[in-house]
Amino acid sequence: MAKSDRINYTLPSGFDIELLPGEKRLEQHWLDTIRQVYERYGFTPIETPAVERIELLQAKGNQGDNIIYAITPVLPPQMQVEGDKGKDSRALKFDQTVPLAAYVARNRNELVFPFARYQMDMVFRGERAKTGRYRQFRQCDIDVVGRGSLNLLYDAQMPAIIAEIFSALQIGDFLIRINNRKVLTGFFEALGVEADQIKGCIKIIDMLEKIGVAKVKDQLLGIGVLEESCDRMITFTQIQGSVDEVLAQLQQTATELNQPETFVVGIKELDEVIQNVRLLQVPETQFCIDLSIARGLDYYTGTVYETTLLGYESLGSICSGGRYEELVGMFAQETMPGVGLSIGLTRLMRKLLDADIIQPLAASPAQVMIVNMQQELMPVYFEISQRLRQAGIKVLTGFEKKGIGKQLDRADKLGIPLCIIIGSNEHEAQICRVKVMETGEQLDIPLSDLVPQIRQLLER
Amino acid sequence: MAKSDRINYTLPSGFDIELLPGEKRLEQHWLDTIRQVYERYGFTPIETPAVERIELLQAKGNQGDNIIYAITPVLPPQMQVEGDKGKDSRALKFDQTVPLAAYVARNRNELVFPFARYQMDMVFRGERAKTGRYRQFRQCDIDVVGRGSLNLLYDAQMPAIIAEIFSALQIGDFLIRINNRKVLTGFFEALGVEADQIKGCIKIIDMLEKIGVAKVKDQLLGIGVLEESCDRMITFTQIQGSVDEVLAQLQQTATELNQPETFVVGIKELDEVIQNVRLLQVPETQFCIDLSIARGLDYYTGTVYETTLLGYESLGSICSGGRYEELVGMFAQETMPGVGLSIGLTRLMRKLLDADIIQPLAASPAQVMIVNMQQELMPVYFEISQRLRQAGIKVLTGFEKKGIGKQLDRADKLGIPLCIIIGSNEHEAQICRVKVMETGEQLDIPLSDLVPQIRQLLER
Repeated sequence: MAKSDRINYTLPSGFDIELLPGEKRLEQHWLDTIRQVYERYGFTPIETPAVERIELLQAKGNQGDNIIYAITPVLPPQMQVEGDKGKDSRALKFDQTVPLAAYVARNRNELVFPFARYQMDMVFRGERAKTGRYRQFRQCDIDVVGRGSLNLLYDAQMPAIIAEIFSALQIGDFLIRINNRKVLTGFFEALGVEADQIKGCIKIIDMLEKIGVAKVKDQLLGIGVLEESCDRMITFTQIQGSVDEVLAQLQQTATELNQPETFVVGIKELDEVIQNVRLLQVPETQFCIDLSIARGLDYYTGTVYETTLLGYESLGSICSGGRYEELVGMFAQETMPGVGLSIGLTRLMRKLLDADIIQPLAASPAQVMIVNMQQELMPVYFEISQRLRQAGIKVLTGFEKKGIGKQLDRADKLGIPLCIIIGSNEHEAQICRVKVMETGEQLDIPLSDLVPQIRQLLER
Repeated sequence: MAKSDRINYTLPSGFDIELLPGEKRLEQHWLDTIRQVYERYGFTPIETPAVERIELLQAKGNQGDNIIYAITPVLPPQMQVEGDKGKDSRALKFDQTVPLAAYVARNRNELVFPFARYQMDMVFRGERAKTGRYRQFRQCDIDVVGRGSLNLLYDAQMPAIIAEIFSALQIGDFLIRINNRKVLTGFFEALGVEADQIKGCIKIIDMLEKIGVAKVKDQLLGIGVLEESCDRMITFTQIQGSVDEVLAQLQQTATELNQPETFVVGIKELDEVIQNVRLLQVPETQFCIDLSIARGLDYYTGTVYETTLLGYESLGSICSGGRYEELVGMFAQETMPGVGLSIGLTRLMRKLLDADIIQPLAASPAQVMIVNMQQELMPVYFEISQRLRQAGIKVLTGFEKKGIGKQLDRADKLGIPLCIIIGSNEHEAQICRVKVMETGEQLDIPLSDLVPQIRQLLER
């Protein structure tokens, strides 16, 4: 076949999220770990379809200017006439928040509120592919949604969950940076910033880390904020210190400003969240108050979070979220405040793999390989394989008629820790030879005692 | 807001695959169970993106006339000019076999062959929505792919895997029906059926269970098969008996027909598969030879499987697959024979739920709920929650200021088995009251001994 006849089987741009087996096994391990922590806090799984009505996905505008992928059936010629009246009106979800709102509206009579759910589905964004940006990626989200109101303690629980997850994933030290939108908006109001400028200010402040103080100031001036206010805003967001020091300074600022209402409420909320994060035993080194955390999205109204991997600040926030009031109730037409968090798993894992912070697992889950020494002994290999599997041990039975060297080489490439070798001598003696791949060590084990001894070897 | 302003938040037709929390938890339990069995046989996970190049998905035609969904970015007005040169040339995968072929071609230098992988992704088909047909659904597939050749023992391993999965899922008795395409094509050849009619015959025979003997005969006649051949084909596919009886009858037929080559090879393969299924300890009641199993898809070349849930035959095959020669190597342009199986999980679970064969799990994974008796005791509730969580117990901490009755009612609706009640009296005495929700039983437990006693209650 000429080269020009070949089909282009490479991944389309932005969809290069495919993992090698050892990487996929690591992702699965991460998903299991994250799921376990979410469930330990009583969150229940849901999954919504990848496809929703386009008008639903656009109900609040394309959040954060996300570009939606519409889907259209490509009909084979003989079916062209049938068409599909839903054509062009379906699209792929670009986040899990709008679908959560739809799920709650669709199922609200069956759900128990506050509804604490997690969701780890793929989402799709039709943006131009840039380095580290994907057009399909997995997000691991949790949200609690109340009916009418939602206790602030749910906000305090979020950092405990983040801390437990990143500790379990063992990716190094991290810092959960907590702020409250009301602290920012209350302070801006007190400076005399116009109500219609405040959301703009928040969006600009959100870029501090990315574009730096000078450009943020330029942009604030650009939307008409007075120079003195700009300087005070920036100075405010740079306040540093222990959580107690920052809280004390906020109290002092409130006094100086004559206790402006929104600002005072924000400080009170932030204080309550922080005190309860402590009661939930999150180590003091793992969280802080950071008044520069603003979050770009419009819908946040209270607590906001970002998480930084220490020493790898350039990765950006590895887990973000916050409290919102209006979002989830939009289809149900009820007030349903919520608080949530999101881990952009696909991007995070790829970055950590590329930076050598994490390593793929073995390419195979098998713990034991049975080497095929003689085809006639296959009944023995099968019996042993099944005995080990019944004991929960993962076994790859070798079927290929290849030399022992090639078979051991395969086990090595797959990262299988133990190989079981039974030739006619071993079979006659009712033993097997076990090769420990890492050390090269070889042991003879009586077949009658195989399961406990293999277990012991796997545990050491 | 007027009713006409409301957004239609219902699921688009064919995408109504959304599960309630207890159902989703059951699906997760199924996925974990299936995964464990696949991994016990040494299969490794992969995942390919939902989106591939359209020409790749159509490389072998739309397999089984599946309609592909193309994706197109819906650009917000300010970005219209930018466009996307990949526009209209991407589509959603409709199965996992073509993507497996692409994955193998893309990563063949990194993979170890035979490559044994499982994959449990969502696939998308733009067909007209019919009852029980979905436009998005999850398939749980395994395939082993060889380079150049693949040992027949992999075919024998498949029924052992199916049997273990359906036994573990506890959905009742099932029967794995095994056949070999070469047995069918060899027999048809021996009857003098033209080479170009044989694939047509296979497709028609595949419909036996659905449309019955009379219609199958009509259709066979319709494609030009002689009436005598039709009758002999149908009689042949109706051969019944134990596997040994069927094998004996096949041998006898081979002798009568003067040992036609393909037929003889097919019988030999079928025999070898069956003998090794036995060696793999699959109970004789769980498998049989069924000469009417043909599988509709063109690409199968040897062993084929279907699985029937006994007593629920109308569900159709709950797990099917087979051996193929050409499929996986198509992009790599190598011979890569494979054998695989697929469980259509979404459809199967929905049908079994609707038929009351299986029941959803509890709506919450939480095993314990801490009742909020007094807001001031929250530090105690938090301490206890974290102590239980550190012991791996799933805890929902109640934050709402509601009466105990309402809180217990919430626990009941969520299916949480134990509630921990600590008011000021219990706190003073350093005990807690545990309510066993199923029996109504109440126990007082010293806080110092909480973890072991809760564990014991959860285990009984």
